[in-house]
Amino acid sequence: MSGNTFGTLFTVTTFGESHGPALGGVVDGCPPGLALTEADLQVELDRRRPGRSKHTTQRRESDQVQILSGVFEGVTTGTPIGLLIENTDQRSKDYSEIAQRFRPGHADYTYQQKYGVRDYRGGGRSSARETAVRVAAGAIARRYLAQRLGIEIRGRLAQMGGIELGAEDWSAVDDNDFFCADPARIPELEALIQEVRKAGDSVGAAVEVEVRHVPPGLGEPVFDRLDADLAKALMSINAVKGVEVGAGMAAAGQRGSAHRDELTPAGFAGNQSGGVLGGISSGQDLVVRAALKPTSSMLIPGRSVDVHGEPVSVVTKGRHDPCVGIRAVPIAEAMAALVVMDHWLRHRAQNADVESGTPVLPARDRE
Amino acid sequence: MSGNTFGTLFTVTTFGESHGPALGGVVDGCPPGLALTEADLQVELDRRRPGRSKHTTQRRESDQVQILSGVFEGVTTGTPIGLLIENTDQRSKDYSEIAQRFRPGHADYTYQQKYGVRDYRGGGRSSARETAVRVAAGAIARRYLAQRLGIEIRGRLAQMGGIELGAEDWSAVDDNDFFCADPARIPELEALIQEVRKAGDSVGAAVEVEVRHVPPGLGEPVFDRLDADLAKALMSINAVKGVEVGAGMAAAGQRGSAHRDELTPAGFAGNQSGGVLGGISSGQDLVVRAALKPTSSMLIPGRSVDVHGEPVSVVTKGRHDPCVGIRAVPIAEAMAALVVMDHWLRHRAQNADVESGTPVLPARDRE
Amino acid sequence: MSGNTFGTLFTVTTFGESHGPALGGVVDGCPPGLALTEADLQVELDRRRPGRSKHTTQRRESDQVQILSGVFEGVTTGTPIGLLIENTDQRSKDYSEIAQRFRPGHADYTYQQKYGVRDYRGGGRSSARETAVRVAAGAIARRYLAQRLGIEIRGRLAQMGGIELGAEDWSAVDDNDFFCADPARIPELEALIQEVRKAGDSVGAAVEVEVRHVPPGLGEPVFDRLDADLAKALMSINAVKGVEVGAGMAAAGQRGSAHRDELTPAGFAGNQSGGVLGGISSGQDLVVRAALKPTSSMLIPGRSVDVHGEPVSVVTKGRHDPCVGIRAVPIAEAMAALVVMDHWLRHRAQNADVESGTPVLPARDRE
Amino acid sequence: MSGNTFGTLFTVTTFGESHGPALGGVVDGCPPGLALTEADLQVELDRRRPGRSKHTTQRRESDQVQILSGVFEGVTTGTPIGLLIENTDQRSKDYSEIAQRFRPGHADYTYQQKYGVRDYRGGGRSSARETAVRVAAGAIARRYLAQRLGIEIRGRLAQMGGIELGAEDWSAVDDNDFFCADPARIPELEALIQEVRKAGDSVGAAVEVEVRHVPPGLGEPVFDRLDADLAKALMSINAVKGVEVGAGMAAAGQRGSAHRDELTPAGFAGNQSGGVLGGISSGQDLVVRAALKPTSSMLIPGRSVDVHGEPVSVVTKGRHDPCVGIRAVPIAEAMAALVVMDHWLRHRAQNADVESGTPVLPARDRE
Repeated sequence: MSGNTFGTLFTVTTFGESHGPALGGVVDGCPPGLALTEADLQVELDRRRPGRSKHTTQRRESDQVQILSGVFEGVTTGTPIGLLIENTDQRSKDYSEIAQRFRPGHADYTYQQKYGVRDYRGGGRSSARETAVRVAAGAIARRYLAQRLGIEIRGRLAQMGGIELGAEDWSAVDDNDFFCADPARIPELEALIQEVRKAGDSVGAAVEVEVRHVPPGLGEPVFDRLDADLAKALMSINAVKGVEVGAGMAAAGQRGSAHRDELTPAGFAGNQSGGVLGGISSGQDLVVRAALKPTSSMLIPGRSVDVHGEPVSVVTKGRHDPCVGIRAVPIAEAMAALVVMDHWLRHRAQNADVESGTPVLPARDRE
Repeated sequence: MSGNTFGTLFTVTTFGESHGPALGGVVDGCPPGLALTEADLQVELDRRRPGRSKHTTQRRESDQVQILSGVFEGVTTGTPIGLLIENTDQRSKDYSEIAQRFRPGHADYTYQQKYGVRDYRGGGRSSARETAVRVAAGAIARRYLAQRLGIEIRGRLAQMGGIELGAEDWSAVDDNDFFCADPARIPELEALIQEVRKAGDSVGAAVEVEVRHVPPGLGEPVFDRLDADLAKALMSINAVKGVEVGAGMAAAGQRGSAHRDELTPAGFAGNQSGGVLGGISSGQDLVVRAALKPTSSMLIPGRSVDVHGEPVSVVTKGRHDPCVGIRAVPIAEAMAALVVMDHWLRHRAQNADVESGTPVLPARDRE
Repeated sequence: MSGNTFGTLFTVTTFGESHGPALGGVVDGCPPGLALTEADLQVELDRRRPGRSKHTTQRRESDQVQILSGVFEGVTTGTPIGLLIENTDQRSKDYSEIAQRFRPGHADYTYQQKYGVRDYRGGGRSSARETAVRVAAGAIARRYLAQRLGIEIRGRLAQMGGIELGAEDWSAVDDNDFFCADPARIPELEALIQEVRKAGDSVGAAVEVEVRHVPPGLGEPVFDRLDADLAKALMSINAVKGVEVGAGMAAAGQRGSAHRDELTPAGFAGNQSGGVLGGISSGQDLVVRAALKPTSSMLIPGRSVDVHGEPVSVVTKGRHDPCVGIRAVPIAEAMAALVVMDHWLRHRAQNADVESGTPVLPARDRE
Repeated sequence: MSGNTFGTLFTVTTFGESHGPALGGVVDGCPPGLALTEADLQVELDRRRPGRSKHTTQRRESDQVQILSGVFEGVTTGTPIGLLIENTDQRSKDYSEIAQRFRPGHADYTYQQKYGVRDYRGGGRSSARETAVRVAAGAIARRYLAQRLGIEIRGRLAQMGGIELGAEDWSAVDDNDFFCADPARIPELEALIQEVRKAGDSVGAAVEVEVRHVPPGLGEPVFDRLDADLAKALMSINAVKGVEVGAGMAAAGQRGSAHRDELTPAGFAGNQSGGVLGGISSGQDLVVRAALKPTSSMLIPGRSVDVHGEPVSVVTKGRHDPCVGIRAVPIAEAMAALVVMDHWLRHRAQNADVESGTPVLPARDRE
């Protein structure tokens, strides 16, 4: 209830601070019989890992994940899967001066007010290092979804600062440091990052995730809609300020005749809905986007107050991403995987023996 | 787990279909000793009520709410509050022809695939009539928040189609049919609605909600962030496709030096954060927005399929709002009230005896 | 979180006080496609109903249940089932004098300390009238379990005061006022009730419930064991002070060689386990018992204090059961049904595609 | 939802198998500002530890617990507390022959049916080794309850086989290997254990736990009663078959005039209720008991079947407690601590500002 658990049937509970001895967590509810090794998790962790490219934080963490339980002879047993990732490169000295002052745009002030005490080293629990465990957990969900249901999840950088990016070539995403599916624009991205870094500033970004081959019927109507849970999942990622499904915020400007996706025997005639109608998956691709604010850690001095309320100036000299949005791509994919997995289990709990009698419409081909 | 309950400590569970005998629900976790009458709930229900203005559906429902339990001698007792709203104007004959076909943009197809059976009358459970119970429950939360913590919640129409509206005069909101705080623009809104209605079409909208005088410290870091729960709450409202907190989607285009709200002894220097840092309230106003798609019910014929997958044409002749976004204002306010109330109880459960020692910064005055 | 909801996937949320306008609740998570009418619920409610026999409270309640949602054309739709039972015979005058004093053995004092306010009429929320909604909800679970899985649930009075009763003839249970499966002992029960009533006293009882034809595999190991959830379910019934599964408290005096139920190809050689091993159903009959204290409402004066802590004498003159344990039989059956139903859905959520490869042993025949 | 989490506001999630690399868990919801070290947890773990006395299993585990997060500079921060206990003495060879057969009285058969796969080494997840994490988590709750509320929790062996034990001298409990508060009877216990061990058999036991100085008002009426949650907590301990609160099963044989605890200005006149009325703490001592079956691991051969359903004979030669009930004392104390802690947080969430106006009666002195 203190908010460190995500999901209802397929759950991940995380623990750990940026500069503590380790991060870790428990994945509960994984169906038994799934082939799973640490390497399956590591591949996703390596995509999110700090120090992976010159455009992200230079903190070097190996992020080696250990599976401590729940897997026996290479197969999940249905019991909880304990995960552990040791912290190895926590340079606490970088952060000592923020013990008494609040970095603007960070959670320092709000943690202090909430708890009266805080682990100020690297942001403690508020650091995005916590998302490593999400990525590991998401990798388990992802593997199940792929193997049992043929569901594919893919993400890309959709915007950085003023640069909007297309989905020209999904196969390029893992071949560049930006998770960019629009390879022709990469020089622009590199130039922007350089400029921002030189200015001691940072820049925002948006990411897009698609979930493909989702069966219709996932999502609980009313409160726990599939899109509502996706919105929560994405908004729970550090720095996210906006979330869209399908047409997103642009829906406010649309006419109904343009928005509604007509149905034909060959499938839906469009995907303004982003794959969700009435909170339930339609069988079309799920399409969600999240906007991330620019990191608040930067070299440009900022006004703030100290713990006594006195004015101070803050400069953040640590190792930081000038654009945290880049590394959000695998995190957003992981969160989408967790949501879809959870709703798959919820759906089959209640509706395992449903036969609708209605043919399933083909998904609209977007490529 | 089937998604008809919202909240963790202050919960509302709803039941009821558009054309069933009644809607209702249970509000659990309300602190004892709060003065409460049916009239306190009715005032909010009347704001949401269909048939209230010429711009919304002409279905006439009195939406009279009854309190069946949990209140004794005018005061809450701490036991669950049972709510009942009888349906009185359900004209089932309007809907009989949709039993065998799926209205584009509606949940007909997804319900059929999920459950194999559906109450097709007026959309059944997927109808926005369900939100009446949310508004009643929200009114309870709102009353507690106002009386005990001085928290004020207000909402307005922020956009309709291409018309973006300012927050010029909040006091005007309840004096016009559009929940519009920009009274000079009302003629434009009226013209747009007329045009859309004549065309047999519909139009999208965006709403904004502010929660003022929130104490710092509400929200659980990591998954159950205050903003993540607000995002879920808003996305769970029928027709919502996008949700923003503070700078929202625009954050993707910002520089960090522009986004971060500096702290001064006189308060935060801006509110790009929308009142949330690290998932926890900062004491600034919470500012959230939601975009709603145009209603999919319209007179312009649409292509669809029937339950056998055969192509059909659908016209929706019932009584419908050409812009469902208008009535979303009190619903979004209610959802915000439920989220803040829940997080207040969660916060004090864990942190009731915290003294941070740090002065609380004043909220930035937006008016 | 205020404890008015039971279950995780198949949930019932109840509301209502003894002397309020109505009791009611919401059953969520019921699979779609189950044929269900109000009559299916009424038959179980009539078994629990006050005023049914001369041995139970003379309060006359028709306990007519209405289904307000979730059923369409005689079949469940998968949406929440709203239930309503109006109170018709609440004689508030009987209870006016207890507003200022605490009845010994009742919840008056603890409610006052917890909430600072209480609906003292007939015990308010602490009255066993609330269990009517449990019985209605249990009837839905029961119907599903019987129709889809062939599971049968039956209960009986196992003890009243010093009289221990056998399971000689289960078919007799619904033919007598005591839910007694040992018809030869009924004259003894009648004599005891008469004696107790004349003395202005009351007497305790124990009930036993069997769940037959349970598939193996239900129950989550560790905390949410099937037996742990049954223990909670039974202990949550008003007046229950002890709960046993299989050998129960007697297990403390046993040797392992006598307790362990050996396995043979013809089935288990005994059922000391009560049908649960490691928290998971074995396929044998579930056998649970609960002991209920004698009702604390009686004509013999008792010492107590008033709300100011001053000594007073209390006599409870209302209409009360001299043995509340009798009517607990259908309530305990309902709670067992809710637990088994919930665990069935939980089990299939995670393990729907498991094939153990191991033959299922036959259950031991107890008749 | 797979049952590896206990509690609602103060939660513990556990993971780990008997012979995996480690056990561990996450404690969430602990209030910030509590002084806490690994030594505070270790002292309780050492009481439960295997190999501690000659009467319990000879498996030697140091059970050294590590705190991986949630504590900073010796004080809890309000963030989740990660716990890790490495397994060091897992002799897998002892267990290899049970891979294909089911030990009578164990969970082997039910795990196989539920999951289709199982970690058979030492019982895997069904082993009582999992309870080490409960004890560590309970130690945190216990420390908070003692320091902030003055609540004291103590347990004792109440019965072993035919020997019923009194609460003659609570101070003796930690001075003997049996957690026995009736030191004069210890020679009898030793003789019984010797006899059972020589016979290659095992014996059942009962434990009692008291929680003292509990404030009135803890517990949610209806389903999540304090006693119902205690019943679940105790029944969730391996081998428990019966649970009693106050008068327990004996209540079935009592008259109301004997059972009801009268109230006087000097306090309650008795404690038949075990400290709970209507599911809410009365301020009297909580008194609960649990009966544990004799361990099913023994040298006397037992009939069973193998995974093909063929008859086999099973002898369990590993290192086992002849009376698992002994070590259940610190486990039962830990579970009681977790329940009381959780209900304290729940109570103050809803009722933090209640003033009942009624004087709190003194608890009855039992010593």
